[in-house]
Amino acid sequence: MLELGTTSTTVVVVIALIALASLAFAMVLRRQVLAAPVGTEKMNDIGQAVQEGASAYLSRQFRTLALFAVVVFGLLFLLPGDGGVRVGRSVAFLVGAGFSAAIGYLGMWLAVRANVRVASAATRPGGRAEGARIAFRTGGVVGMSVVGLGLLGAAGVVLIYQGDAPSVLEGFGFGAALLAMFMRVGGGIFTKAADVGADLVGKVEQGIPEDDPRNAATIADNVGDNVGDCAGMAADLFESYAVTLVAALILGKAVMGEDGLVFPLIVTAIGAVVAVLGVFITRVRGTESGLRAIYRGFYVSAVIGAVLAAVAAFVYLPSSFDGMGGTADLSDVSGDPRIVSGAAVVVGVLLAGVILWVTGYFTGTTSKPTLHVAATSRTGAATVVLSGIGVGFESAVYTAGIIAAAICGVFLIAGGSVWLSLFLVALAGCGLLTTVGVIVAMDTFGPVSDNAQGIYEMAGGASGELGGADDEGAQILTDLDAVGNTTKAITKGIAIATAVLAATALFGSYADAVEKAFDDVDEVGTGLVTSMLDYQIISPVTLVGVILGAATVFLFSGLAVDAVTRAAGAIVYEVRRQFREHPGIMTYQERPEYGRVVDICTRDSLRELATPGLLAAFAPIAVGFGLGVGPLAGFLAGAIGAGVLMAVFLANSGGAWDNAKKIVEDGAYGGKGSPAHEATIIGDTVGDPFKDTAGPAINPLIKVMNLVAVLIAPAVVATSVPADANPVVRIGIAVLAAGIAFGAVIASRLRASRVDREQESEGTAAVGARV
Amino acid sequence: MLELGTTSTTVVVVIALIALASLAFAMVLRRQVLAAPVGTEKMNDIGQAVQEGASAYLSRQFRTLALFAVVVFGLLFLLPGDGGVRVGRSVAFLVGAGFSAAIGYLGMWLAVRANVRVASAATRPGGRAEGARIAFRTGGVVGMSVVGLGLLGAAGVVLIYQGDAPSVLEGFGFGAALLAMFMRVGGGIFTKAADVGADLVGKVEQGIPEDDPRNAATIADNVGDNVGDCAGMAADLFESYAVTLVAALILGKAVMGEDGLVFPLIVTAIGAVVAVLGVFITRVRGTESGLRAIYRGFYVSAVIGAVLAAVAAFVYLPSSFDGMGGTADLSDVSGDPRIVSGAAVVVGVLLAGVILWVTGYFTGTTSKPTLHVAATSRTGAATVVLSGIGVGFESAVYTAGIIAAAICGVFLIAGGSVWLSLFLVALAGCGLLTTVGVIVAMDTFGPVSDNAQGIYEMAGGASGELGGADDEGAQILTDLDAVGNTTKAITKGIAIATAVLAATALFGSYADAVEKAFDDVDEVGTGLVTSMLDYQIISPVTLVGVILGAATVFLFSGLAVDAVTRAAGAIVYEVRRQFREHPGIMTYQERPEYGRVVDICTRDSLRELATPGLLAAFAPIAVGFGLGVGPLAGFLAGAIGAGVLMAVFLANSGGAWDNAKKIVEDGAYGGKGSPAHEATIIGDTVGDPFKDTAGPAINPLIKVMNLVAVLIAPAVVATSVPADANPVVRIGIAVLAAGIAFGAVIASRLRASRVDREQESEGTAAVGARV
Repeated sequence: MLELGTTSTTVVVVIALIALASLAFAMVLRRQVLAAPVGTEKMNDIGQAVQEGASAYLSRQFRTLALFAVVVFGLLFLLPGDGGVRVGRSVAFLVGAGFSAAIGYLGMWLAVRANVRVASAATRPGGRAEGARIAFRTGGVVGMSVVGLGLLGAAGVVLIYQGDAPSVLEGFGFGAALLAMFMRVGGGIFTKAADVGADLVGKVEQGIPEDDPRNAATIADNVGDNVGDCAGMAADLFESYAVTLVAALILGKAVMGEDGLVFPLIVTAIGAVVAVLGVFITRVRGTESGLRAIYRGFYVSAVIGAVLAAVAAFVYLPSSFDGMGGTADLSDVSGDPRIVSGAAVVVGVLLAGVILWVTGYFTGTTSKPTLHVAATSRTGAATVVLSGIGVGFESAVYTAGIIAAAICGVFLIAGGSVWLSLFLVALAGCGLLTTVGVIVAMDTFGPVSDNAQGIYEMAGGASGELGGADDEGAQILTDLDAVGNTTKAITKGIAIATAVLAATALFGSYADAVEKAFDDVDEVGTGLVTSMLDYQIISPVTLVGVILGAATVFLFSGLAVDAVTRAAGAIVYEVRRQFREHPGIMTYQERPEYGRVVDICTRDSLRELATPGLLAAFAPIAVGFGLGVGPLAGFLAGAIGAGVLMAVFLANSGGAWDNAKKIVEDGAYGGKGSPAHEATIIGDTVGDPFKDTAGPAINPLIKVMNLVAVLIAPAVVATSVPADANPVVRIGIAVLAAGIAFGAVIASRLRASRVDREQESEGTAAVGARV
Repeated sequence: MLELGTTSTTVVVVIALIALASLAFAMVLRRQVLAAPVGTEKMNDIGQAVQEGASAYLSRQFRTLALFAVVVFGLLFLLPGDGGVRVGRSVAFLVGAGFSAAIGYLGMWLAVRANVRVASAATRPGGRAEGARIAFRTGGVVGMSVVGLGLLGAAGVVLIYQGDAPSVLEGFGFGAALLAMFMRVGGGIFTKAADVGADLVGKVEQGIPEDDPRNAATIADNVGDNVGDCAGMAADLFESYAVTLVAALILGKAVMGEDGLVFPLIVTAIGAVVAVLGVFITRVRGTESGLRAIYRGFYVSAVIGAVLAAVAAFVYLPSSFDGMGGTADLSDVSGDPRIVSGAAVVVGVLLAGVILWVTGYFTGTTSKPTLHVAATSRTGAATVVLSGIGVGFESAVYTAGIIAAAICGVFLIAGGSVWLSLFLVALAGCGLLTTVGVIVAMDTFGPVSDNAQGIYEMAGGASGELGGADDEGAQILTDLDAVGNTTKAITKGIAIATAVLAATALFGSYADAVEKAFDDVDEVGTGLVTSMLDYQIISPVTLVGVILGAATVFLFSGLAVDAVTRAAGAIVYEVRRQFREHPGIMTYQERPEYGRVVDICTRDSLRELATPGLLAAFAPIAVGFGLGVGPLAGFLAGAIGAGVLMAVFLANSGGAWDNAKKIVEDGAYGGKGSPAHEATIIGDTVGDPFKDTAGPAINPLIKVMNLVAVLIAPAVVATSVPADANPVVRIGIAVLAAGIAFGAVIASRLRASRVDREQESEGTAAVGARV
């Protein structure tokens, strides 16, 4: 086993200390956020209700997921491998899952406290800068925690397991990704079911404004922002961070030996330092838009990060690949490790910057595509939906093209060597992640300001109590909310880029795992088995793998969208019932039962979260054992290809619809209450589950499937390759896995039919009562 | 060169005669259709206007495409290859394109004459059976012509070129596919721009019924049904037929030598015989639904076709692969050619049956998913759109899964041999195509009955002149139209299945072409070039290829949807203008200027058709020369994987929305004029460009890109592999191709901005005038 030298050990210890310092810095920021004034009593009451709902949901969610984590923990032990590493991997799985959950919980915990503070700031003079500052610092806490915990986990495993760290880290990354996926799906269903349900009854049917306190679904809507957009997103970005780092370390060891284990950690530690900087330099100057300040903070910290990483490469790495101690075949490599590594990191940072710009272009309130979507509102809802879909498709292609160009660039830097290029792709991912601190801060900005607006409206903004005729506070919060829409879309673009880079690199880990498993097998079987091992893309079964991989992404997206539609339907019936049975709600004489809607959201999202989760975990198992390692590689490629496009399509069309609505609300094409406004509300509602449920969940989905493939690769080889392998075992596992994945889908379909029937009879009753 | 023996020559001559007989049978059916009475004078007037519009559009389209065909004809000469074969291939390209155009023209020509006859039939007693019979026979003419011309072309080339036939047939297939793609895109934009435009102004803004003669866009809408759904679809199915046959012959020769060149022709000739049968046995009994009759006709002819094909395999093929004279490496093959070939054909027929059933399930008016979409109309347009998208995603996955299962089944039949399985996949495609005669007849059913309904309404049905209070005629035509919606969705499912099978088989042709090109190269270069040749899916650039392939499908779909939205916008403004400037239209005192709307549709669709076309033709060239043959294989795989899912998603969600609207119009959830109806109209409008423009065009898109790859493979190898190859040539071609593809997209974007600006000012003027 490879053991780290003294220098390397010292460096890794320093990195671990940087990780701890990041966490300490997060605590300092947290105190700053909490020190801000909390506003009026009414605001506090509402904030309290949101806090309770969010905590209750996350606690129930964690109880559900804990069971799942224990099962996976057990399953990991069944996989072949060395004893100590196996235990380490399983424990690391739990740690990764625990960190992911902790980050999610922290994000939610702070966001539900920051929202009232931002709302309160908006009522005071200078509220714009102050509100933006609190929202951004809240994000800073989460960002620093993501960086700190990710770095701490990786450095800790490297210190303990030395050369075996990569295998153990597979567990860490898998735990982080799996939990993040569930949180993304569950939280995403919660938040959008509440949002869509609230909009359908409130804005569309009753004609009352968004966030009107008479709407029983408003508290649930605000809870959703926190458990979905805050908790889910924080866990997701932590997972991106962890998995990219894991892929870099696995390939780093294979390509560069000890240096390859340490250098990626150095790059991400630089990211931590840069994040601190980014949080400090991002502040709104005078009346400039929040977006401008965020962009400035991002670009300045990205440039500094790139320069520092390049310097680190020259200081730390040797000038030749000879004797670096990697195990991969680098006979075709001739470059200078310092130059190629530094260049790869710079490509990653550049990629982040370009994606930021492109996503901002496609979803910003002042850019052509969004203005185009807003303009189509003059010909009705159908053209709004169509133009948004067009914008989404197109922007997905550009984003995918840019990511592809980055990979090609790295491939050229590697001089065409497959193994070196795989490692450099992972390094580019690390480069991209040096900006993650600022990115998380940007993203958290969205839900916090959205929530603040909601609380402001409910606490008297809607009835004119707070701001009066010239309601500056409301305008500030609306502006911040629009900035949040764009930053949320940008974060999704960056997250999917990390997913593609990490997944591409994990492809290498997968091939590495397959190769090692082959070394353990003496005799190789023939016939069908040979084809199963064929990575060649022209084999029909590999192509079948590609089709199935793409199909999994479509099915996953469809399940997520369906779950939201269904849960939103349940909420519509509940809110309608409250309006019907308690006519006093409309005249402010009765208080709606907010809690019942929160309960429905909680129940439905926990019920719906299992199906996509099981699909993601078991589909690669079914393909791997059923069709072989070649088709499984095809499966992953298909999932990555379709996944990146689908994720960006869903995120950007949703973002464009949301901001097109804002454009109309700001007075274009008739403004609020006009037919154009109604059309954009429909577009926005369609976009809700696109951009906040299905789209962002694809990012962890891709990584979960890749990691499952890496983990099962040795078992697939062991059950299929040896001449005396019993095909019954292999096919049995495949059938079982397919049964679980498919069974979950069927169960969800049956539940859907039942809900349809229930709503059918309830609906008739409701219509009867209204008539 | 391989020369055919006497027996084979005789068989091929017989097949050519069967092809001619099919064409003669089509003429007989045509006479039957034309013999039916043409109805009232008013019907005839309207029919005449539709005929003129459709002929004018197709003529202009063919003039535009002729130029394009000449350019491609020239480019084909630039490719490396043997002189005689090169000339043959270029000529075959023109013949394929010409046949495709001829079939399209014929489909349109007959449909615009059949529509008035169906409308007229509906006014008479027994109209249901008679109307269905005329519509189905019209389809029969097109179906028999597709089969006849496809078989004639392939048999002719085999007789003339003997063993060189496969290379020449590449040109035939390419011509057919390229022309079909343009006709699908152009016709698709025309038909849906008119449809969406008519609906937006008529149904949504003015509250007048569909097909109301006061709406200036109604004639254009009916013209569109003919140039899009009839002409485009007929060309598309001809192309499916031709390309599948081409792939089967290329691989057949490689695997089975002479027998492999003849057997696929035998299978498709059986399809011709079966089609005649299918057309005769499909007749509506008493009051049964048209769909039931069509299903019966399909299943009976499919079973007969499968049995006959299996018999043919046992009679014609030898019992062992030894000495069959193929060039592919079959050392890993041990089966009986009669059994494996027969079984593959049966798998293809089964596949057609299963897809028919699944698509019918997801889009039929009485099945759960469509009822679910209709039920979501109670909570508004947003939930209708979302549930339709959910249904589309899910059904796409099942369809893709079924196709994947069929390929896996064939792979198992082939005992895991890559080359044999590729040929058998193509044979399964031929098996699937034995049902194409009935399928085409089914599909044509849709637009003809849609048109008939339109003519009926315009000729007095809408004002009650024709049917009176108990308007049985209108009800018959509405029923036929609903059947048409489902059969259209089914045809699209079948078409995409043939696309996947043909493309999978073409993958084999591609690898074959690359291998042969390698044999011509003495020295092999190193470094980057080695990676470019790597088919291994784990190489990062191959993965980039997969991403770019999927991206091309998304971009193509986005461009098609955008083009429709834009053109529909132009029509909305035109119709609004006519209503504004000629108030007498609303009171039936003035006649709208139908011709102007037809002109706008013609102009816009011809202008918009170039961009997706250039993208499809040049993207694979850019990837091939830019990244190499391995990434190009990845590109094709990504396009197939994303393409099949996207195509089915778009087709089925569109079909479900259309029929959900019909369910509401039949009285559910408040019926016509209710908020639920309005919600489903929005869903249907969103679905229009999905199901009739973007979705169906993906089918020829996939094949065009595959055939381009097969054609350029030798040139890619020749410009990159030899050690002394000049990279400037290769990269120059790549940059040029990327420039053309990307330039077309940019040009389309600039045009879009201009249209936006124009509509912005016109829109303001219009609003001003209305106020």
